[in-house]
Order: sequence, then structure tokens, then C-alpha cells
Amino acid sequence: MTLLFVLYMAGLTASAMTGALAAGRRSMDWVGVLIIAAVTALGGGSTRDVLLGHYPLSWVAEPWYLGVTAGAALVTVLVARYLEYLKYTFLFLDAIGLVVSTLIGCDVATQMGQPISIVVLSGMITGCVGGVLRDVLCNQVPLLFSSELYASVSVMVGAIYVGGRELGIDHEVVTVTAVTAGLTLRLLAVRYRWGMPKFVYNKDWF
Amino acid sequence: MTLLFVLYMAGLTASAMTGALAAGRRSMDWVGVLIIAAVTALGGGSTRDVLLGHYPLSWVAEPWYLGVTAGAALVTVLVARYLEYLKYTFLFLDAIGLVVSTLIGCDVATQMGQPISIVVLSGMITGCVGGVLRDVLCNQVPLLFSSELYASVSVMVGAIYVGGRELGIDHEVVTVTAVTAGLTLRLLAVRYRWGMPKFVYNKDWF
Amino acid sequence: MTLLFVLYMAGLTASAMTGALAAGRRSMDWVGVLIIAAVTALGGGSTRDVLLGHYPLSWVAEPWYLGVTAGAALVTVLVARYLEYLKYTFLFLDAIGLVVSTLIGCDVATQMGQPISIVVLSGMITGCVGGVLRDVLCNQVPLLFSSELYASVSVMVGAIYVGGRELGIDHEVVTVTAVTAGLTLRLLAVRYRWGMPKFVYNKDWF
Repeated sequence: MTLLFVLYMAGLTASAMTGALAAGRRSMDWVGVLIIAAVTALGGGSTRDVLLGHYPLSWVAEPWYLGVTAGAALVTVLVARYLEYLKYTFLFLDAIGLVVSTLIGCDVATQMGQPISIVVLSGMITGCVGGVLRDVLCNQVPLLFSSELYASVSVMVGAIYVGGRELGIDHEVVTVTAVTAGLTLRLLAVRYRWGMPKFVYNKDWF
Repeated sequence: MTLLFVLYMAGLTASAMTGALAAGRRSMDWVGVLIIAAVTALGGGSTRDVLLGHYPLSWVAEPWYLGVTAGAALVTVLVARYLEYLKYTFLFLDAIGLVVSTLIGCDVATQMGQPISIVVLSGMITGCVGGVLRDVLCNQVPLLFSSELYASVSVMVGAIYVGGRELGIDHEVVTVTAVTAGLTLRLLAVRYRWGMPKFVYNKDWF
Repeated sequence: MTLLFVLYMAGLTASAMTGALAAGRRSMDWVGVLIIAAVTALGGGSTRDVLLGHYPLSWVAEPWYLGVTAGAALVTVLVARYLEYLKYTFLFLDAIGLVVSTLIGCDVATQMGQPISIVVLSGMITGCVGGVLRDVLCNQVPLLFSSELYASVSVMVGAIYVGGRELGIDHEVVTVTAVTAGLTLRLLAVRYRWGMPKFVYNKDWF
């Protein structure tokens, strides 16, 4: 549990950093950087909580989460020029964030007694919506809808996690399996540019 | 009541299909298509529920709604090339979706004991916001704000529905009247390109 | 208290007018103008209430607020050509709206027993998010993230307000101080184009 929390903080940091970099691409000021970083890192869990009516939101109960995202944003601004040399560390931490926040999202919905489909969806919302909000605030079509496997990794992680529990498998075994499978698939997808098939439609009749 | 439910499902399907087509215009992958379809079809009711504090949201209580929107999205991808020949069927089903989801939105607010103005607004949010979210996620100015009568049809339907009830008119008579008037106005608006007057402002001083 | 309410209404009106003008720049129709005006004026408080789980939302409890924003929108359409001559009045009223809605946001969070950091953030969300939603719906990068001091004014006002109260200073003295300091800083920022430093990042590796 403590390890999972450490991983969650690492993921939160990586996620906030992607937000700060996206803000920098739009030449935003520091206020924009801080806000986009916080929304990217915490927007998925917040959306989940608002949709499920799960109050208080995590950062309202634990305002120091906002300190973590602010710290990550400021560090990003300071070391931005060196970050590309840490590309693989960065992608690895971001993958950890995706996988771990998916598990947390599943746990929240499970504790609320939601059915399996909502539990998996809750994991996906927690893992993926922050990046969507980042892209909407930066006025671009969300990357989630067209780049390498991301939401599908989240769904797979949630399905393994929920399925394993339904089958009565030991919780730690299921968690480790889900995290490992998710990290592996995500990193392979980034490495080999695996994506879902695209749907291209050009007509304009409606 | 059962007929209304069938019409609601038809409208939900049409709405999800407009979402899938919009995703295809942005060359999104299947994940994007599924998400945009679900948000388009269910985003209006979800926004209403979140704003009014009406939990659980419909698709959380009835997760198979998500199956309907996913099915509609997949069918859209498969038959996309033929859809334009069904243009009028499609516009008709979309109009039904607008009108019926407006009525459902009015009912939700009425059951919560909201005043008349909020009831009508709740209907409009239910009928219209899904398309706005679709357009925001596809990075374009929402069609709702500039194309043929849509939100105004929703407001008229809500006003007839609420007004008729206040006047003590039989519920079925009011429902049929509201649906008929709404469908007629919407289809005439599409046919003759009736829109609200535009407000064009080009100055840049603030 | 009554004076604060009058100022709040003035700010609400100015905020709705910025929304209507932004809608006009996108050549929206009257429906779009009414919706953008309402979202700009009331979206900040609504976002705060949804995030904190504070129901009912202000305009649900007091639907006549929507009448104020609709009236402001219609007046804007009618007198748009003369508005630029009132530029300084307009900027002054908008600054009042920022400051007063920040105070209201702080009060809401305080009454819910939130910690200081959330109280200040609640003020900032109330003062600033309406403009962000306006810009997202108009498909542009939010001004908040790159123009003159705005969110930082809100944070300063909230910090003075909360800090003064924590120090046990008389409530009216604190309120007047916070409002005066906020108005002064915001108007100086507009006059001399003071902004936060920008973060410019052009690389595309993630």
C-alpha cells in the first residue's frame, strides 16, 4: 500500500509536468502553468468524484496534493531545457501514473458499491481525463483520442484488477499483475507506436 | 411511457452517432470514437445531474446505456459510407432525441421540486449540452451557438410541457403536443435553415 | 453587506457582458450569446460549488440571476457599438466582479469549514473560472493563462481576506482592505500591462 502511494505521487508529478510543458508550448504565464499542471494531475480523479458524487475530492481533503503539482510545475519551468534528455524516465513515470491512478479509480468505485463496468470506467476516467482537460484548456484535440494506446491500457489494467478480485485471487498478486501488464503494454505501445485503428470520415452532410 | 422510452433510446443512438461522425472528422481512433459518442449522448443529462446534485447519474445507475452508445459508435464506423443516404432518417432521429431528452430533463427537475424556470433550463441542458461537449472535445466552436434552431426548440418544448401542466391539462395531451410542436419546428428549421439572428462583433478593445 | 451585494451584481453584469462580446467575435446567434454570458458570469461559482459539493448552486436557488445575465447580454447586443467608449468603466466593473466574487468564494468555503488553502483557492475559482469556460466555449486558449494579472489578483485578495480574519482583524476593515488592494492591483496591471513571467517551451518530444 505504501509502495503504491509512492508510485502514485511519482505519477502525479509526471502528469503535472506534462501539463506544465503543454502550457509552455502555448507560451502561458506561471499562473497558467500552475493551473494546467494541477488540472492535468488531479482532473481525472476530480471528474470521477464529481460524476460519482464522491465527496470530498482528494485535493480538497488533502490540499498538499496541490503543493506537489505546484512543485512539479515550478521544477519543470526551471529544468525544461534538460527534460528531453530524461525522455524515457519521463515516459516511464507517466506510465506509472496512468496505471496507478487507474487502480485508485477502481478502488473508489468499488468502495461505493458500483457494478463492475462502472468500476473499470471509473479507473479509466481517473487515469485519462486529466490529459483530456489539459488539451482542451490548451485548445487542441485531446491526444488521448489519436495517439498510442493509453485509455485501452487503462481499461485492460482495470479489467485485470477487477477480474482477478472477482475470481478470488490474492489482492497483492492481482495488483502486481495489473501494474506489470499495464506498464509493459504502455511502454511497448510508446516504443513501437501501437495505436488503435483510426476512423477517418470526411463528409459534411450533417 | 414505454413509447417515450423507445423514442429516448432512438434519440440516444442518433446522438451517439453524431458524436462518432464528429470524431471521424478529426481522424480519431476507436477509443476517441467511443468516448465522444458516449459524451455526446449522455453528457447533457450528466451535466444536468451534476449541476442539480441529482445522483446517481443515469449511466451509473444503468451502465447498459453505455453499451447502447458504444454499439451506436461501432455501427457508425462500420456503415459510415452509407449514412449520408439516410440523412433525413438521421436528422429525424436526432430531432426526436432533442425533444425527448428535453422532456426527461424537465421531469428530473420537477421531481426535485425546482421552480419553473429551472425546470425549463434543465430540459434545455439535457437536450443540448451533449453536442456542446462533443464540439469542445473536437476543438471547434459549438454548432449549438450558430446553426439552425436547436436550443430554442428545446426551450419551446419545455415551456409547452411545463405550461400545460401548470394549466392542469392532461399529461398525455401535453406530452404529445410538446413532442409534435418540437419535432415540427426543428424539422422546419433544418429544412428552411431557420436560425436565430446573429450577433457579429469585430472589435478587440478588451 | 448590502453594498457588497450591489457590487456583486455590477460585477456579474460586467462579466456577462464580456461573455456576450466574446460570443459576438465568433458571430454566434442570440442563443449562443445568452449561454456564453450566463456561463461567463456564473460558471466560476458553479464550478466551485460542484467541486466542493455545495448544493444548491446559486442560480438554481436564485433563478433571477439568470435574468440578470440575460439582460446584460441583450443590452450588450443593443449597445455593442458604443461599448468601447465605456472601456474604462467596463474594465473597472470587471475588476469589481473579480474582487467581489473572490470574497464570496472565500466565504462559501469558510462556511463549509475548509482549510485556508482551499478557502483561497475557492475564491480564485469563483473569480476566474467563468472566463476560462467562456474562452473554451469560444475555442480559444483562455486569456487567464497569458494576459495581465488576474488570477494572481484573486489569490492576493483571498490571502488578505483570510489572513486578516485569522489575525482577528475587524471583518469590515479586512473586507475594505482586500477590495481596495485588489482593485488597485488589477487596474494598475491593466494600465501598465503587468503580467506574470511567461514560460515558453517549443520542443515536441513527448
